[in-house]
Amino acid sequence: MSKQHTVIFTPSGKRGQFAEGTPVLDAARSLGVDLDSVCGGRGICSKCQITPSFGDFPKFGVTATDGSLSEWNSVEQRYDDIRGLPKGRRLGCQAKVTGDIVIDVPPESQVHKQVIRKRAEARDITIDPAIRLLFVEVEAPDMHKPSGDFERLQAALRTQWSVEATASLDTLKTLQAKLRKGKWQVTCAYHVPSGQILEIWPSYYKGPLYGLAVDLGSTTIAAHLCDLSTGEVLASSGLMNPQIRFGEDLMSRVSYVMMNPGGDVEMTAVVREAINQLIGEIAEQASITRADIFDMVLVANPIMHHLFLGLDPVELGQAPFALALSDAQSFAARESGLEMHANAQLYTLPCIAGHVGADAAAVALSEAPNLSEDLVLIVDVGTNAEILLGNKNGVLACSSPTGPAFEGAQISSGQRAAPGAIEHIRIGADKAPVYKVVGCDLWSNEDGFSDATLTTGITGICGSGIIEAIAEMRMAGIVDASGLIGSEAQTGTPRCISDGRTNAYVIHQPENGPKITVTNGDIRAIQLAKAALYAGARLLMDRLSVDTVDRVVLAGAFGAHISPKHAMVLGMIPDCPVEKVTSAGNAAGTGARIALLNLASRAEIEATVREIEKVETAIEPAFQEHFVSATNIPHATASFAGLRATTPLPDVSFNETGGDRKRRRRR
Amino acid sequence: MSKQHTVIFTPSGKRGQFAEGTPVLDAARSLGVDLDSVCGGRGICSKCQITPSFGDFPKFGVTATDGSLSEWNSVEQRYDDIRGLPKGRRLGCQAKVTGDIVIDVPPESQVHKQVIRKRAEARDITIDPAIRLLFVEVEAPDMHKPSGDFERLQAALRTQWSVEATASLDTLKTLQAKLRKGKWQVTCAYHVPSGQILEIWPSYYKGPLYGLAVDLGSTTIAAHLCDLSTGEVLASSGLMNPQIRFGEDLMSRVSYVMMNPGGDVEMTAVVREAINQLIGEIAEQASITRADIFDMVLVANPIMHHLFLGLDPVELGQAPFALALSDAQSFAARESGLEMHANAQLYTLPCIAGHVGADAAAVALSEAPNLSEDLVLIVDVGTNAEILLGNKNGVLACSSPTGPAFEGAQISSGQRAAPGAIEHIRIGADKAPVYKVVGCDLWSNEDGFSDATLTTGITGICGSGIIEAIAEMRMAGIVDASGLIGSEAQTGTPRCISDGRTNAYVIHQPENGPKITVTNGDIRAIQLAKAALYAGARLLMDRLSVDTVDRVVLAGAFGAHISPKHAMVLGMIPDCPVEKVTSAGNAAGTGARIALLNLASRAEIEATVREIEKVETAIEPAFQEHFVSATNIPHATASFAGLRATTPLPDVSFNETGGDRKRRRRR
Repeated sequence: MSKQHTVIFTPSGKRGQFAEGTPVLDAARSLGVDLDSVCGGRGICSKCQITPSFGDFPKFGVTATDGSLSEWNSVEQRYDDIRGLPKGRRLGCQAKVTGDIVIDVPPESQVHKQVIRKRAEARDITIDPAIRLLFVEVEAPDMHKPSGDFERLQAALRTQWSVEATASLDTLKTLQAKLRKGKWQVTCAYHVPSGQILEIWPSYYKGPLYGLAVDLGSTTIAAHLCDLSTGEVLASSGLMNPQIRFGEDLMSRVSYVMMNPGGDVEMTAVVREAINQLIGEIAEQASITRADIFDMVLVANPIMHHLFLGLDPVELGQAPFALALSDAQSFAARESGLEMHANAQLYTLPCIAGHVGADAAAVALSEAPNLSEDLVLIVDVGTNAEILLGNKNGVLACSSPTGPAFEGAQISSGQRAAPGAIEHIRIGADKAPVYKVVGCDLWSNEDGFSDATLTTGITGICGSGIIEAIAEMRMAGIVDASGLIGSEAQTGTPRCISDGRTNAYVIHQPENGPKITVTNGDIRAIQLAKAALYAGARLLMDRLSVDTVDRVVLAGAFGAHISPKHAMVLGMIPDCPVEKVTSAGNAAGTGARIALLNLASRAEIEATVREIEKVETAIEPAFQEHFVSATNIPHATASFAGLRATTPLPDVSFNETGGDRKRRRRR
Repeated sequence: MSKQHTVIFTPSGKRGQFAEGTPVLDAARSLGVDLDSVCGGRGICSKCQITPSFGDFPKFGVTATDGSLSEWNSVEQRYDDIRGLPKGRRLGCQAKVTGDIVIDVPPESQVHKQVIRKRAEARDITIDPAIRLLFVEVEAPDMHKPSGDFERLQAALRTQWSVEATASLDTLKTLQAKLRKGKWQVTCAYHVPSGQILEIWPSYYKGPLYGLAVDLGSTTIAAHLCDLSTGEVLASSGLMNPQIRFGEDLMSRVSYVMMNPGGDVEMTAVVREAINQLIGEIAEQASITRADIFDMVLVANPIMHHLFLGLDPVELGQAPFALALSDAQSFAARESGLEMHANAQLYTLPCIAGHVGADAAAVALSEAPNLSEDLVLIVDVGTNAEILLGNKNGVLACSSPTGPAFEGAQISSGQRAAPGAIEHIRIGADKAPVYKVVGCDLWSNEDGFSDATLTTGITGICGSGIIEAIAEMRMAGIVDASGLIGSEAQTGTPRCISDGRTNAYVIHQPENGPKITVTNGDIRAIQLAKAALYAGARLLMDRLSVDTVDRVVLAGAFGAHISPKHAMVLGMIPDCPVEKVTSAGNAAGTGARIALLNLASRAEIEATVREIEKVETAIEPAFQEHFVSATNIPHATASFAGLRATTPLPDVSFNETGGDRKRRRRR
């Protein structure tokens, strides 16, 4: 038996005894140490760089000397000459164990690098994408064993990487020339789920490979371009969903299809075209080509999901809201007409139900309620609100028809969150508002605000602005619990003006042009929307027989801008300590990115979705009851323990025709 | 326990005990009786028709009465009213066992019908194609279990047929409407190897489904359209391979690619276009549409195989003759640009070696040397000869470069086997020939021959004609063993005329136009071709250390027309009793048809090909030796025991300049 030496790897702390002459890479592999290698130990890829440490290591009980590793060899020298090896580094496949040694695996040499997410409650993403680069040495052809070039490549992948591979005719076309150019060494882009070879490069190809995470919304399409080996987001881009010309909201698009046979085909074509345009833009931004993009993960609500896949969405517009397809799909991107690499792959997350789509599944993947210790309510606020409630014991899901009011639609001065839109409002003791607009960091009462907003103007109120406006109006005693705005006489501010049978509150009065106001109609629209949202959440809570949740996560691009306190004043969400309400930003997009970067997460979310219990609000009588009792601000069933400590709401009451100011003591 | 009854099925003779009320179909299934059912026992498909027999059956020990089966029911009555049920028939899924009974399964109710092949040594084909029709009842959508239409179809296929199914986006597009039209009953065309649903029909669809067996030759492309459920050949068609314009033979096509970069792309395009044209023609012939064709099996030699698949054939033109792809391929036909049903599938048989293609594999499938008890030599004669030798203990394969002489090319009066071509010749004691031409059943000395050939004329000699001509000339003493033609003086016939340094033999002298002759150059070309063929066979025999084979099978369209006796006189094939030489016709086409009709045969031939030992003639010194010693007629190493008994060859010897007639006694 040959001499044995102790090898200790850091940062993992894994240790073992190895025979004299064992390559460090082999030692790492046998201990399960996360040390990368694309070329399989041939000194080509340099992915297995390690930093040996010499000296006394009392904590490990070893002493490492210069003689603890084999000498710097010609392969390392050649690599250093050509590409440069950082000082102190060795190649793990070349350096052999000749004594006790401590070896550090630097982060860039780890296969499963991590993308660290900033939020405390969010899990980090382990980089392990669906597509891997595999370098192989293929046997040269032999007349006496007349197997094909491809069969020899398959055999090489089998023995050197333990994978079974297939390839399309188009890929096979190029194989012969590449094998010969690479002198029987090639690198394959291997799609793990399908076993397909997507591309072949002569000799060693170190990447990069790119992937896209796409969040296909009713209004906007957002895409993030990621480096599949680092997880880095290289470019992000978005554009309006061109289907808007067929209908602003989802139901009007379904109606369009009902009225115009073939309308779905039209809408499928325009949305695919838009995604193709987005791919082109994002590739240009990152100075790469479309053909460098090998993978895409797409999330969308059920109707957008169907329209993208070319499936008729009409059934989703009527009970029983039957999905044509609910499971996750994995297919060649060209099948859906997308132009990336010719063999690029596409993965769509599963839909949870007819109203709870792949976007909600992506939120579930990002926020992982199924792993949560405490009871978490996740609300993805958009045209429809998707609601998840649960913890590691189980997760419920439903969708609530909030309508587009939260996005600034159906609001008299409402608009999308574009420069010039009021997004934050505070109303002081003087009952006058100060506000901020999108595109300017100053409040309206700060110096320079007028100059800063000269080009954009102050054009309207966006979704988060209207929520803050109404909540602030309620806190300032301008609006009563039933949602009525008081008159000037009742509220004592000339900003309350008569607006037909009811009143309106003036937020901004430009010198020229129309006033920006909040009308009683606006409040009514928001009341209906927030009552729907609350009723959905409440319905799920009923199922679990709970009155409170431990924490609330607001998701959705819009959710990112909602102030938790104002959402609570409005009664959008159930009772919860205000500090336990957080924003997850575009969690659906993040979920898409996770599925792009980590293959295992796909199986994970597919399993999670199968376990999620779906609740259909449309057929639940309790939903209607909750809805009705939730229209007030705050509503009848809420206790608002979390909020009341900080924000007592004034006990005012107005009536529709204005009239005398009434003030009652709270009972 | 309920009452048990004896049920006996004929013709299988299988019997069992079944509880009162068991449907006959269930009884058949539990015994493994081959009783068809597409609808899974719902009384829709009528595939499970059976004929009950009543009375005493002493040989089975049972007595069947009118009460042995449940009464004719409304499902059977409805089926009889609409489609008619033959007298005495019942539906196996409706008729229930109520007493001892003998039940006959008529051939049309058997799943695995057989195509009976006429030749004694050929195996019958069991019909079990790659594509099956599966009727299913799908659960209607349910808001409380919000799975997609497709997932419910998958579940139905899983529980009702025990299969896992996938489908392309294009197929899924049509699913919703068809499920609803069929009231949640649909029939799927299911591709067993890939698990793909290729097509969906509302409610019950009984077929037919069609498939094509294509033999892609260097010169001609032949296709047979088959009904996949009966195996019946509904139409056959063929056309010239348009690649001929790039080069008559395979090597000249490879040269074309070498000289013209991109030439392979051009040739791939034209051959695919030709196959598309052929699909159109054959569909029209059979009064079906392209879209009715769901499956294709294609066989070809390695170069045609590569050019069809879009792979560069250049490597096949030079040592080590590396195939780009050797294994069988199964993919969507549209990948290769073929226009049939949008989801039609394509299967190509494996190539055996760089010179022994998928066509040779198809011959092996049809002729099954690997199952043969006696040692069989199979020769597929074409531009190249593919040779298989073996029995159940093992099979060897090689290819021999015979060149195109056997097909009438490189022959002074040679032509393809078209109307007007001389295909059979006999030379009498008077040393004058009689002959038959393609397209006419009369011999040239029979009444009416001139009239019958008036339109076609007598235009040349085709492959089988030249072989017979030279063999007959040899038997008549016009040609000596070395292949030289005697002069008029030496042979005593004025048909021997001087042709430069050597002589020629006149077969036909038209009033106008050139003579049809066999020249010494022609004989030399055939000598080289037959020596190559013989040397290949001999090389394989050396490997097995045998001097004779038990039987010889001549395959190939041309092989079908070769007279075994003349082939033997010529020394094309090794020694074997003449009655043991048979023709297998277009065995490659038959092999393609077998792979089309019987899925299991695909795995079978793939396994067989892996076991076949390949011998590369180009690098075997023994091949050259055999070749040199095989140029004589008969050649030096042959004993011709099988032939000599019936046909002693005259012991003549001529020389190149003609000169005096010499006649020597045979030693």
